[in-house]
Amino acid sequence: MHKENNIGDPSSNSTTRLRHRKRSIEVPPEVPKSDGSQFLVNDPKKYKSMLIRTYSTIWMIGGFIFIIYMGHLYIWAMVVVLQIFMARELFNLLRRANEDRQLPGFRLLNWHFFFTAMLFTYGRFLSQHLVNTITTDKLLYRLVSWIVKYQMFICYFLYIAGFVWFILTLKKKMYKYQFSQYAWTHMILLMVFVQSSFTVANIFDGIFWFLLPASLIVINDIAAYLFGFFFGRTPLIKLSPKKTWEGFIGASVTTILSAFLLANIFGRFLWLTCPRKDLSTGWLSCDPGPMFKPEIYSLPRWVPQWFPWKETSIMPVQWHALALGLFASIIAPFGGFFASGFKRAFKLKDFGDSIPGHGGITDRMDCQMVIAVFAYIYYQSFIMSQNFSVEMILNQILRNLSLEEQQLLYGQLAKILEERHFLQY
Amino acid sequence: MHKENNIGDPSSNSTTRLRHRKRSIEVPPEVPKSDGSQFLVNDPKKYKSMLIRTYSTIWMIGGFIFIIYMGHLYIWAMVVVLQIFMARELFNLLRRANEDRQLPGFRLLNWHFFFTAMLFTYGRFLSQHLVNTITTDKLLYRLVSWIVKYQMFICYFLYIAGFVWFILTLKKKMYKYQFSQYAWTHMILLMVFVQSSFTVANIFDGIFWFLLPASLIVINDIAAYLFGFFFGRTPLIKLSPKKTWEGFIGASVTTILSAFLLANIFGRFLWLTCPRKDLSTGWLSCDPGPMFKPEIYSLPRWVPQWFPWKETSIMPVQWHALALGLFASIIAPFGGFFASGFKRAFKLKDFGDSIPGHGGITDRMDCQMVIAVFAYIYYQSFIMSQNFSVEMILNQILRNLSLEEQQLLYGQLAKILEERHFLQY
Repeated sequence: MHKENNIGDPSSNSTTRLRHRKRSIEVPPEVPKSDGSQFLVNDPKKYKSMLIRTYSTIWMIGGFIFIIYMGHLYIWAMVVVLQIFMARELFNLLRRANEDRQLPGFRLLNWHFFFTAMLFTYGRFLSQHLVNTITTDKLLYRLVSWIVKYQMFICYFLYIAGFVWFILTLKKKMYKYQFSQYAWTHMILLMVFVQSSFTVANIFDGIFWFLLPASLIVINDIAAYLFGFFFGRTPLIKLSPKKTWEGFIGASVTTILSAFLLANIFGRFLWLTCPRKDLSTGWLSCDPGPMFKPEIYSLPRWVPQWFPWKETSIMPVQWHALALGLFASIIAPFGGFFASGFKRAFKLKDFGDSIPGHGGITDRMDCQMVIAVFAYIYYQSFIMSQNFSVEMILNQILRNLSLEEQQLLYGQLAKILEERHFLQY
Repeated sequence: MHKENNIGDPSSNSTTRLRHRKRSIEVPPEVPKSDGSQFLVNDPKKYKSMLIRTYSTIWMIGGFIFIIYMGHLYIWAMVVVLQIFMARELFNLLRRANEDRQLPGFRLLNWHFFFTAMLFTYGRFLSQHLVNTITTDKLLYRLVSWIVKYQMFICYFLYIAGFVWFILTLKKKMYKYQFSQYAWTHMILLMVFVQSSFTVANIFDGIFWFLLPASLIVINDIAAYLFGFFFGRTPLIKLSPKKTWEGFIGASVTTILSAFLLANIFGRFLWLTCPRKDLSTGWLSCDPGPMFKPEIYSLPRWVPQWFPWKETSIMPVQWHALALGLFASIIAPFGGFFASGFKRAFKLKDFGDSIPGHGGITDRMDCQMVIAVFAYIYYQSFIMSQNFSVEMILNQILRNLSLEEQQLLYGQLAKILEERHFLQY
């Protein structure tokens, strides 16, 4: 929130300003120029910039495919690494070197909160999956139960420790800077962890639910870039002067079509469709359920006689994929607009400089964040089958209750079902 | 976060500054005066100020007791009203009249997010309790199931609508103000709703778990005030120059003793100890469990012979109350320090002026927020009995599964227990 004293403020000292000069020199003009020179179509340097961008894009996509091949745990690890990089970029964004020198250990507090948030988000998730990995080991079972039971208390304790630490290190004349940093830290953690906890949940519900949305965003970005590159002329929104209607519409059509086709391709691999309930990396096999069973549709009558196929097979999940495609192309770009607006408000060019031609990690993640949450909620609301919820509760019983309690529950359930005359045996 | 351009900044216009003058004139000096004149002991106006404060305190406590008597739903309603007032105070805090005039409808966005957060926090909770209120009505059961199922999606949709609305109404030269307001809104909602959702959960776990912590904070505040009033001489912390070590220590001892005694008194009423699982306001009866069963302790030998009692009865919950008392007197005050620091950083006297002598609602709620979360997590981690978790899962089964699914689950559980040779019949 507190870039303002940083740049363009005569009272801020030169050290601080130097730190940010690199990022803040190339701010694009606020108003699109009337000759259209800001669009890629007319940019003379566009081929060199495209080359750099293509090169790093290929590397990123290649690495991504390799990680998908390696499996759930590796994808999770990737998400965590991205989280750390994003948090670092964002923590550094509103840093002021001069103030920080007078507040030793203040930076550490950010990371204290970061790791508390991590323990909170992943602790329970991790231990629940751990139980499924090793149900036979009594000692480990107890340890995991202990962690599950007290995890919330431990996290709360850590948070309060950070809170007290913050208050005890408040320094006169620094109050405003410190409070702003505190709030900014919370906003970052909220953003980073809400999004990534949904992403990790998607991964373990089946890589499909992570891979499809993520791919659609990448496809939409690339298509928007290419359509804009070759046809872009009409400006779309003032916040991002380089974005054009041609890019937006071309990308939407491409993304929705891709969603429909990709869902069919991804839906064929058990590796992508099966949920993973333990923490092993072994082979997965499951009944992927009716969502991924192809249904035969005969083609409409107006298809000419000479056309070789008379029918086509479509998985029900493909219709849902259309919803994801629609979201990825219409709503998710607002994540990008938000990031652009933020950068414009605080006079930044990029959030960082980790990826050549793309800016920081955060610049690539803006739309991914929006769609990960959507995919999770869509999956929970419209896809997760009823049977799965029986399974979920059963898992809960086996994980959280002792054997005596399981018997107790069984007895009580029997009694209730008997009373209602629903017990058939 | 963005008070800075507001006060003491020569560039801000006079309209804005007028709006805040009332609250910002009486800022206490940053450094305690060496003659000790800042302490209440030496304040000549202290009796008048104490009278006003006592008067409104009595009204507040009276109203509070009446609401406790009315029951869970009314307490909940009180929490919601307090939430709305707190949010209003905090939303207004960083408002700038001049900017707002140029952004019609921008204030509405805050309340859009507020009600989305409310639907998110209470929607599920409400509908789950509603199911217990009226299990016989098939139609209502379906409606509630529908809400439970799609509530998350509806809330997400509303949030995204607000997000898009925000981006589309971004106005040139207002970016920084708008983004700061957006972040500030999120911080407020995070603070207000995290705290109040825990509070409401406590209320329905048994009013005891809401009433005891809340009372301890009030007792600690009053005791600190009185001890400081009569004995306070040694300054405690620079953030709150009126707070003294005498007040802090006297209040701690008082609070811990009160916790032990109050737990015994509150623990005798089923109205306070029974959890409420429906939304009616009728009489409660339950087995309050071993926590509230008095145990007999014989007094130690050094108690003189003439002392009439040879033994005393203590409820196990009283030992837990000591933990609450300790927290209320040692950690919770940091909530107050945080608020003081915040007010000092942004040069405010109070958060509002709703309660004569006390300032705004937020000024009275700062420590309540910290302890409500603690009480919830403490209850979940150390109090909630094992039996209760069997009951919880059973509730979940009866609420969320259809009859067929309940039978399916029963069958599967039978199979698993048989396999493990734990089924005794």
